[in-house]
Amino acid sequence: MSMDITFLGTGSAYPSPTRGASALVLRREGECWLFDCGEGTQTQFMKSHLKAGRITKIFITHLHGDHFFGLPGLLCTLSLQSSPDPNKPPVDIYGPFGLRNFIWRSMELSHSQLLFPYVVHELVPTRDQCPAEEFKEFSDLDRDEGAQGRILHMDPVENSYLLVEDEQLVLKAFRLFHRIPSFGFVVEEKPRTGKLNVQKLKDLEAPIPGRKICILGDCSGVVGDAAVKLCCEADVLIHEATLDDTQEEKAREHGHSTPKMAADFAKLCKVKKLVLTHFSQRYKPAAQRGEGESDITELKRQAESVLGGQEVTLAEDFMTIEIPMKK
Amino acid sequence: MSMDITFLGTGSAYPSPTRGASALVLRREGECWLFDCGEGTQTQFMKSHLKAGRITKIFITHLHGDHFFGLPGLLCTLSLQSSPDPNKPPVDIYGPFGLRNFIWRSMELSHSQLLFPYVVHELVPTRDQCPAEEFKEFSDLDRDEGAQGRILHMDPVENSYLLVEDEQLVLKAFRLFHRIPSFGFVVEEKPRTGKLNVQKLKDLEAPIPGRKICILGDCSGVVGDAAVKLCCEADVLIHEATLDDTQEEKAREHGHSTPKMAADFAKLCKVKKLVLTHFSQRYKPAAQRGEGESDITELKRQAESVLGGQEVTLAEDFMTIEIPMKK
Repeated sequence: MSMDITFLGTGSAYPSPTRGASALVLRREGECWLFDCGEGTQTQFMKSHLKAGRITKIFITHLHGDHFFGLPGLLCTLSLQSSPDPNKPPVDIYGPFGLRNFIWRSMELSHSQLLFPYVVHELVPTRDQCPAEEFKEFSDLDRDEGAQGRILHMDPVENSYLLVEDEQLVLKAFRLFHRIPSFGFVVEEKPRTGKLNVQKLKDLEAPIPGRKICILGDCSGVVGDAAVKLCCEADVLIHEATLDDTQEEKAREHGHSTPKMAADFAKLCKVKKLVLTHFSQRYKPAAQRGEGESDITELKRQAESVLGGQEVTLAEDFMTIEIPMKK
Repeated sequence: MSMDITFLGTGSAYPSPTRGASALVLRREGECWLFDCGEGTQTQFMKSHLKAGRITKIFITHLHGDHFFGLPGLLCTLSLQSSPDPNKPPVDIYGPFGLRNFIWRSMELSHSQLLFPYVVHELVPTRDQCPAEEFKEFSDLDRDEGAQGRILHMDPVENSYLLVEDEQLVLKAFRLFHRIPSFGFVVEEKPRTGKLNVQKLKDLEAPIPGRKICILGDCSGVVGDAAVKLCCEADVLIHEATLDDTQEEKAREHGHSTPKMAADFAKLCKVKKLVLTHFSQRYKPAAQRGEGESDITELKRQAESVLGGQEVTLAEDFMTIEIPMKK
């Protein structure tokens, strides 16, 4: 079963012609799962080989504008392109508390009646996910009585949020530290037993492990011990690296990471592949770099030096990474 | 004094790689006035020769998403690029009632504290600007007590809304009929008396007339008699033409215009130059049209046939139209 990740926006703070605002798509079994939806994501979809109509789940890591201001427009366009189908399952949207009200208010104000069902599941952050003065309760928000969706509190034993579990996979969220509460997501396939020799594999106690993909929102570190456990031996870890190592102080001040910080976490988790993204717009893609402009490949070198030379990938808009099945 | 108009988005319904969502800039005396701000407008600015930092006024014609979903992101990016300046005058934002709450809620939810001052002036529409079942009062919206800005009701004598008046110009809004209340804007320079021969001109009672630019939001017709009066003999009329004449019924059903409808209004107002925009995404720019795809130049022919051959311009993204001074 093929599985791949396509980056639709790899820039931080705002969209630019060289790096869109945050968005990436995990594709599996013909479904697209969208992680973050910065302004312009629907146009990036059109420029890519992916079809926005295949989106079945949307995950928003945190409520900074460059991660979710594209959501109202994307939902309206999906609606324009959809035909009413009473059997169609709803699009599940996951994100921090406050997101449901924003979507509802945006649809209401723009007189948009979406022709497909959707539900918004809101994650309730904990106070230690951001500086104390930045924490907001949003307790005054109206509730859209008509909208469905759960309010998800952290499991105090696991230190994580269980979002999806079916026969094939488990999807959990965990806490990150940022200027405002931010989340990481882990998609983990359950172990398979080979179809043709189930009994033999069972006898050998050797099920084939599933793939594990970790996608982190903006952060300068994690909160609690769940993140390292959940990301342990991930096949792919997607981590932000907004600024290069020489600007670590500034990065931390804004709740961001450098390549070294990302690689330290990757090393701790023994991940197999580290992909950096969410670069300051000053780092143009290598092919478009002008004279005297910042060199993005320096970020690759900084991360690789922590990982003893293990190759690190720098994300670019429209780059696709295949995640092969294990044997 | 030079004056020009640049189109940043000429497509309807949603942004695409060939036509951005609605946005155009009127530039005068180094200031940029932005009319509509669909998703992706900030990126279109970056691709153009214009500087978003020069924006001093923003006008939103109506509250469909393809006309204002780019506003929160644009404001955040303007803030990132601005330096705090206590003497800087506020950016004036004009739009239908409900806009202030949306901006405030979007900024609040995304923890965005804009570093420049802005005020939102809200136009209160009348019930006859849309089908009765579509009218919404938005009377339940919270007020942002901290935000400044006026609530503008229609002047019942003039049948219009006075937005700006100074020594040089007058800017008024008037009512359009659409699926939801929509507005048109008229920017009219006051007559000048030539600097070197003021007395002579006064004696001759021949002041040099100012330029008049009319920018209409989505519509299938106008409401009341102000529109024709205000647009009379305009130098430039920018009018939507979402679908071609063969689809007039569908256009009207969705509150839109065809080239003939736009040209009929232009003829009634005796405008000097008609520019069509807000095209269905099926009409690609002529240079990018593929085999079997709809022909945008047909819309030009349809409008010109009403105007007895007077040339009509079809807007494209990044097209600039100069409006010369009168002599």
